[in-house]
This record gives sequence, C-alpha cells and structure tokens, in this order.
Amino acid sequence: MPDWNAEQYLKFEGERTRPARDLLAQVPNTDARRVIDLGCGPGNSTELLMLRWPAATITGIDTSAAMLRQARERLPSQMFVEANISHYAAPADTDVLFANAVFQWLPDHLKQLKRLVTALKPGGTLAVQMPDNMDEPSHVMMREVAHRGPWREELAEAARARDMLPKPGIYYDALRPLCTRLEIWHTIYNHALDDAAGIVEWVKGTGLRPFIDPLEAPQRKEFLADYTARIAASYAPQADGKVLLRFPRLFIVAVK
Amino acid sequence: MPDWNAEQYLKFEGERTRPARDLLAQVPNTDARRVIDLGCGPGNSTELLMLRWPAATITGIDTSAAMLRQARERLPSQMFVEANISHYAAPADTDVLFANAVFQWLPDHLKQLKRLVTALKPGGTLAVQMPDNMDEPSHVMMREVAHRGPWREELAEAARARDMLPKPGIYYDALRPLCTRLEIWHTIYNHALDDAAGIVEWVKGTGLRPFIDPLEAPQRKEFLADYTARIAASYAPQADGKVLLRFPRLFIVAVK
Repeated sequence: MPDWNAEQYLKFEGERTRPARDLLAQVPNTDARRVIDLGCGPGNSTELLMLRWPAATITGIDTSAAMLRQARERLPSQMFVEANISHYAAPADTDVLFANAVFQWLPDHLKQLKRLVTALKPGGTLAVQMPDNMDEPSHVMMREVAHRGPWREELAEAARARDMLPKPGIYYDALRPLCTRLEIWHTIYNHALDDAAGIVEWVKGTGLRPFIDPLEAPQRKEFLADYTARIAASYAPQADGKVLLRFPRLFIVAVK
Repeated sequence: MPDWNAEQYLKFEGERTRPARDLLAQVPNTDARRVIDLGCGPGNSTELLMLRWPAATITGIDTSAAMLRQARERLPSQMFVEANISHYAAPADTDVLFANAVFQWLPDHLKQLKRLVTALKPGGTLAVQMPDNMDEPSHVMMREVAHRGPWREELAEAARARDMLPKPGIYYDALRPLCTRLEIWHTIYNHALDDAAGIVEWVKGTGLRPFIDPLEAPQRKEFLADYTARIAASYAPQADGKVLLRFPRLFIVAVK
C-alpha cells in the first residue's frame, strides 16, 4: 500500500480534529510531564497535546514516513519517531498515551490496549478514539463495489482490512480489571458536506485507501464512479442541498 | 404530577453532569455576558455555567418550585426564576441559551427551538442536550409494564408523555436557515451501575416518574417489581457483576 497522502487527510482538518479534542477533554491528567501521541499522523493531534500540556515532553510515533515528515515540518520543536504501535513500549514515566484514530488499523487491538494499559504507571492514562463506521453506508458501499466489480479478487483483502469494533461491554471486561477508572462512549457526528462527491473526498483520506490504492488508474476511476453513485443514492440531500455524513466513533479513557 | 424530587435526581450527579459539560465545551461564546439556563433544575448545570463565565449574569429558569429552592440554596448569588420555556422570551442581549435535558419534556420542541434561535441576537448561541433513549430497554420496559398491568388505562397518558426525538436531519433542516453555524451530534454513554436495581434508581429520578407518580403505594411497588425484573433480564451483567446502562443523548449547538 502506498504511503499516506497527508494533504488529502488534512482537507477536513477542522472536522477531523473535533474527535481528538473531545477525547482530550476527558483525559484527567492535568499536570502530565510525558505524553506519547500514538499514530500521530501529520501532527494535528500532537498540536492539541502541546496546547493542553505546554510543559510536557511530547513524542509522536507513526509508521508513515510521509506523515512524520509533515509533522516535523509543522512542529519542529517536537520529537517524532517512526515506530509500529504493535511493538512499541512507552517510557516507564509516561503519563498519557493518546491514540486518535489509529487502533482500528491494528490486528488484535484489544490485546494491544491491554498490553499498553498494563505497562502504564499508576495514574497513567490510555486515551483512544476509533471510527466505528463499518456499518454506515459510506463503508458498506465500499465493500459492495469491491465485491461486484472485475477487481473482486484483487480487493478481497481490502474488504477484510478492518474488522467491526467489538461492543463497549467487551472493552469494559477486558480493561476494567486493569484500571482505577474507565470511560467508554460513542459519539456520532453529522458532517454537513456539499454533496455525495464530498463524502467520497472525505473517505479518500482514510477508509477508501485500501480499496483504491491497489487499482490501476482506469479501474480506480471506474470504482470511484460506481461508489459515488451508490453514495449519492444512500445519502439524501437536506433542504439546503447538503448531505449529512453520519460518523460514529468509539472513545475509551482508561486510567491505570 | 407531583413536583421533582431533587435529592433523587442528584444521586447520580457526577455522571449526570458529564453531558452538560460536553455540551458546554462546544459553545463558542468565550466572553458571554448574559447566559440563561433553561430548565436549570437544582442548579448543577448553572454551576457549570458560572465556572465557564464567572463575569456573566446568569439566570436559571425552571417550572419546578422545589428544584428552584434547591438551586437558590446551592447558588445564593444567582438569579432563579419560575417560568415555562414554552412561553419564555429571553432578554434581547442574551449571549447563550443553555438547555440541558429539558426540551424532551416540551410539546412541539422543534417549534420552540426555532422560536428561541430566531429571537437570539447575531452571534448568540442556543445549546441543547436531550436524552434520546426511548428505544433503549430502560424505556421500552416502562411502556411494556404500563401496557400489561392493571394500571393500563391510568398510565396510557404516561406512555405518550415523551415522543421519540426526530432524526438529526430534521433538526438540521429546521434550524440551518436560522444559523451561521450548526452542530448536531449524539453521544452514547455507558454508565457502569451496580445492578438492575441501580438502573431503576437512575431512571426513578427522571423517565420513570410519569409512570410511578400516578400510582398508589401498593401498585407502585408492584410496577417497580415487574419493571426491575425486566431490566435485570435486559441488561446482562459484565464480568465484574456490574451492568452497563447505555444512554444515547442528542446535542445541538446553534449559533445565530
């Protein structure tokens, strides 16, 4: 899979940053000294962490060299490290592990969450946000187009790239014994976008990538046309012509 | 219907206040001078408003004399007024109308929301949170017990006391033409309570009141026993024996 396109991802920066802000608002560690931004991407979440804890040492980690390059340009004073969360061990004095929209990409993320909370010092917090939108038309339609086109075999892997998230009770049972405090909630945002093409642009930055990245240009175009038509049929325009992209996200704040 | 029991309502104050805090966090008016707390109850939301805007003139309004008494005791420096939102006109210089968990009780609340936004000055904000849990077992079971018992006719009105909330798109179409900015979202909280009886205690403070208030003591006891048994059957205990009360709430922040 080619590397992340940071520019495409940042097209909706304001709206994409709201979940990170909502997550951060529930982290209780007022005087954190060491903070790790797991899956920092182009550094927009890292910037929020700097504003909350100006005196803290903040390190962003990500597997994407392109994203890290953007992050370093944006925040030259911070440390950014290329690392895979699945094999990452945070420093022992870490106060906050912040993970905005990254764990959904990791195999067996429940196991990873348990591992990271277990390694935290007492009072340390793991704060996690993940899209939980696999049942939304935006994502159901990706899998449908993948199944029905000439690219079916090529994209079989993509349709399996992300599993449905478990229910809150599963996270509760896994993490509660490891925590002094645990909050689990969903927020369902409604993003008002110009039209169906706006929804396609939105998901191009993230969820659509495993479907279109493996395709050659002509097939990609065909895939996108089919997908856009299905999106237009699934999201009826509002009175002002806009469409509301319903976007559920899962949040977990676990304090050791 | 007897007046609100402020003590019962405050039993879960910490958890009940989180939605008000979440709503407040999205109100953009940093330097508000006049703020109205619509349906202020015992003043817990009013206290949040004071912390956010210490220099503002804050007025709490409510229809319940008992709630207002508690609010005045708690916050003697603030003004509390007995008034019905349906007939309420805010002062012309109002910056923020804050309405935490009250509009769900008002007939035709969509019309009321439009009326209040229309009357706001430019830049003024109407911020609203409402429980959207009529489809949750906690509330489905109230209606079921009401339909199946000897109190059926007596409670026919209660089962109609609150309608389902419209979908976000309905609020969007109604309010968007009146606003410069409009955010609509749901948050689904999961409250870890000790057991089924804990869920019953929780809803006793609010949603269960129209069902049990009209009943005499023996019937009320019978209703609660039947209801508690159904709740126990609907909410399976977690590994640690607790139950998760899933609680969806709708939020609207409309800036004129």
